[in-house]
Amino acid sequence: MQAVRFVAPAGAFTRTVQIRFSHCDPAGIVYFPHYFNMCNGLIEDWYTEELDVNYADLILHDQHGFPFVHVETDFKIPSRMGEKLDLTLLIEKIGRSSLTLVIVGHKDGVERLRARTVTAMMSLASKRSVALPETLRRAFEAYAARTA
Amino acid sequence: MQAVRFVAPAGAFTRTVQIRFSHCDPAGIVYFPHYFNMCNGLIEDWYTEELDVNYADLILHDQHGFPFVHVETDFKIPSRMGEKLDLTLLIEKIGRSSLTLVIVGHKDGVERLRARTVTAMMSLASKRSVALPETLRRAFEAYAARTA
Amino acid sequence: MQAVRFVAPAGAFTRTVQIRFSHCDPAGIVYFPHYFNMCNGLIEDWYTEELDVNYADLILHDQHGFPFVHVETDFKIPSRMGEKLDLTLLIEKIGRSSLTLVIVGHKDGVERLRARTVTAMMSLASKRSVALPETLRRAFEAYAARTA
Amino acid sequence: MQAVRFVAPAGAFTRTVQIRFSHCDPAGIVYFPHYFNMCNGLIEDWYTEELDVNYADLILHDQHGFPFVHVETDFKIPSRMGEKLDLTLLIEKIGRSSLTLVIVGHKDGVERLRARTVTAMMSLASKRSVALPETLRRAFEAYAARTA
Repeated sequence: MQAVRFVAPAGAFTRTVQIRFSHCDPAGIVYFPHYFNMCNGLIEDWYTEELDVNYADLILHDQHGFPFVHVETDFKIPSRMGEKLDLTLLIEKIGRSSLTLVIVGHKDGVERLRARTVTAMMSLASKRSVALPETLRRAFEAYAARTA
Repeated sequence: MQAVRFVAPAGAFTRTVQIRFSHCDPAGIVYFPHYFNMCNGLIEDWYTEELDVNYADLILHDQHGFPFVHVETDFKIPSRMGEKLDLTLLIEKIGRSSLTLVIVGHKDGVERLRARTVTAMMSLASKRSVALPETLRRAFEAYAARTA
Repeated sequence: MQAVRFVAPAGAFTRTVQIRFSHCDPAGIVYFPHYFNMCNGLIEDWYTEELDVNYADLILHDQHGFPFVHVETDFKIPSRMGEKLDLTLLIEKIGRSSLTLVIVGHKDGVERLRARTVTAMMSLASKRSVALPETLRRAFEAYAARTA
Repeated sequence: MQAVRFVAPAGAFTRTVQIRFSHCDPAGIVYFPHYFNMCNGLIEDWYTEELDVNYADLILHDQHGFPFVHVETDFKIPSRMGEKLDLTLLIEKIGRSSLTLVIVGHKDGVERLRARTVTAMMSLASKRSVALPETLRRAFEAYAARTA
């Protein structure tokens, strides 16, 4: 497979994950479900650190859930214990209650994995989808604009 | 979202997973990366119990790996602690070294999730993809034929 | 280390766990936190199948929690992908709100691990420990008596 | 239960862990096996960042394993999504091939959990325990001395 270059847009939210012993399988590479944990952690940190929205409060206080309704991922290059993997979050689409993100895992400018995730905002009480609150929508739009 | 009926083809490999406390998140539903663990376990059992191919030997003895190169999943209906989820495995495509599976999670005849996974057979020594061994290819073809 | 024989008492609750690819680390053996997942699953099944107490209902309906307050484990012999590990649950002590269990992992009559766990029953509402309900206490005492 | 104060000795290795959605169970608190993952990550970082010993190389290059042979833990105060938990590593005993660590989880000067772990150094080739290499032993002794 040919290497695909990746350069994060200026201002894009990127965090580095240490690949650990606990992530790796008997073949010595990351066991793929762990990548989804890393993506979920990245999304949490993005809310809290980039959008200045407390993710824990959204769930525990506002009683909103963000279930994943769709995930698709290309795993291009495996990662190994001791490596550091950069994860960059980009917005692809802002729906009424849904948010489509693209998360790129990369190292030294080369893509290792590319995930597209769709989450839908729901009320934990009614268990129904709800429209994105206006403050959240504006924060998403501003991030999408400045990383376009 | 409208419920989608699912009836497994006769002869299809189905296993039932107990949804446990450890699978569930603060919203009380399965945290989605656990579904991929369940899918991986289903594939293991399918090799060993349905195809009569020892999965552990394929890896530990034959030194083959089966990394996931692509995964896409629709999560339609959440599952909760104490429920039993049926998982059915179907073959979509048999490539030179790759295998495309569809795994449907269902309960009481209604789809809860649908995953498509592509794995590629590789040599752990050379770290390159290798053609599917003829015995494995025949086992895949026979399963695909009898569950079409 | 010398092998320690283990014979489960008649009537003791034993379940067999398939050691999977997902349990194993780059050294090819079970990564130890997975054993605690297995123990937790065993305890769930013991409530539901042996004591005829629906574990999910205890938590979701009765709003009881069973946090672990103490765990200690000797890991004696590692387990590998493809093996089947037997787990046997025994009661060591029944307290006012706490329950001390011993869980022995064994294969072919030889101990592989031995865990002692202490859980305390609490109310999820008050977040305080509560006395074991009388029906639960009687079920524990009967199990302890018949496996002594 | 009475709160236990904890003040890390000067020079002790402490890292802060963000408690995430993925760590928490339907009762909203950390599901206990995740704490062992956190401890394992702390130990990795301690080797690499404090002792200047590349942990990944010890395993992948030198073919040493560090299986846990004993773990015991008191879980005193639960932790919740959004909290930051400090983990401090101390040495209790340096054996011929074994190392006994104490890991204290604390927040705002109060202990939340206290784990004692015993790992034994082994050769992945011979699958037998081996004496700690002299450089490693000296690094352990120096750390124990400066955090006593």
